[in-house]
Amino acid sequence: MTPRIAVLASGAGTNLQAILTHLATVGSASAGAVTLVASDRSDAGALALAGRAGIAVAAIPRANDGDSIVALLAAHRVDLVVLAGYLQRVPEVVTRSYRGRMLNVHPALLPAFGGPGMYGMRVHQAVLDAGVKLSGVTVHFVDEEYDHGPIVAQWPVPVLPMDTARVLATRVLRAEHRVYPAAVVAVATGRVTLDAQGKVCGEVGAPLAAPEFRLQTEESKQ
Amino acid sequence: MTPRIAVLASGAGTNLQAILTHLATVGSASAGAVTLVASDRSDAGALALAGRAGIAVAAIPRANDGDSIVALLAAHRVDLVVLAGYLQRVPEVVTRSYRGRMLNVHPALLPAFGGPGMYGMRVHQAVLDAGVKLSGVTVHFVDEEYDHGPIVAQWPVPVLPMDTARVLATRVLRAEHRVYPAAVVAVATGRVTLDAQGKVCGEVGAPLAAPEFRLQTEESKQ
Repeated sequence: MTPRIAVLASGAGTNLQAILTHLATVGSASAGAVTLVASDRSDAGALALAGRAGIAVAAIPRANDGDSIVALLAAHRVDLVVLAGYLQRVPEVVTRSYRGRMLNVHPALLPAFGGPGMYGMRVHQAVLDAGVKLSGVTVHFVDEEYDHGPIVAQWPVPVLPMDTARVLATRVLRAEHRVYPAAVVAVATGRVTLDAQGKVCGEVGAPLAAPEFRLQTEESKQ
Repeated sequence: MTPRIAVLASGAGTNLQAILTHLATVGSASAGAVTLVASDRSDAGALALAGRAGIAVAAIPRANDGDSIVALLAAHRVDLVVLAGYLQRVPEVVTRSYRGRMLNVHPALLPAFGGPGMYGMRVHQAVLDAGVKLSGVTVHFVDEEYDHGPIVAQWPVPVLPMDTARVLATRVLRAEHRVYPAAVVAVATGRVTLDAQGKVCGEVGAPLAAPEFRLQTEESKQ
């Protein structure tokens, strides 16, 4: 059985693209397939990308009604919900229905630089303002609190002296594109699970193994 | 002129050893020399190590009197104070006198997992309890707040599924031994400075360059 993945996105869909590319590279149906892309914005690049890839698309209604979102996901028999640059708050009825089956990616090393108001460039500006030398990527299960759910994977990204928020954002996004698809497959295939006590079991593993993370090489590329 | 470095330590002195080894490897007097090791504990391994290395040693009096610590450092014409597993609170008169010239290392990625009460195994247990996948090392200038001063360098260390606090502590300490000596030399030589606005200028650079940080290799070693 191919795990059925729904991607919720509000933007250009670069993480969606990275997930599709990764699934194609893995080349095994058992890794999962994106069978639905839904957005709160009709002009989201992610919808156009899904259309070109022959993936079903759907609009999340403006009312952001949880029951209709649950119905939509159920109609598509979705196993795993992946938030990829999705800007709407996910209603509690949805997060409860998909406990341990909904992932989000945050562009910093949680628990630092997360929570309400910490999205987009604000995250990276806060990182720069704090003067930290490392930022990164956090993939976590979604629960009822912003940026709070159990952590599935984290990856470091260096902060460099001349960074602007935009330059740092680009570097972090590149790391997201490596880490998020591997985490999605790990959860889709049941290799990583959330237990009843809220503990993450298993390891993403793969993105940590190849390519090896070379901090200096990352920097040198800039 | 060789920058004169004082190391304050309460424990075995493994960071002191790493600094001495690094200075010997650099092989240039201009990188700095440890000319004083002081401790609040007469049985600290760091004092024995300093004795064997022919470095002056001193006791920090139990009263933890700031003025006498300043006098001690002044008598030894200390340019840079390095806290290396030093468990006493440093009096404000000392931190103010050595603003931008006193370093500390914290065994986690600040601003997370720092502050009062966060020392030793408590740090690593808190990291494990939070379920994060990355910990690390933070070198920072010392100011009047615990684990708060401007950050000089940070380095990531993976948290692995079977980790205990003790196992994680060992892995983080190994990273400290690479990062801290390089940060000490960078500040001792004036390559990294603290400006009047409290901003860190310059880059440690070296430990980020060699050896390349390989996350998976770090893990495989366990």
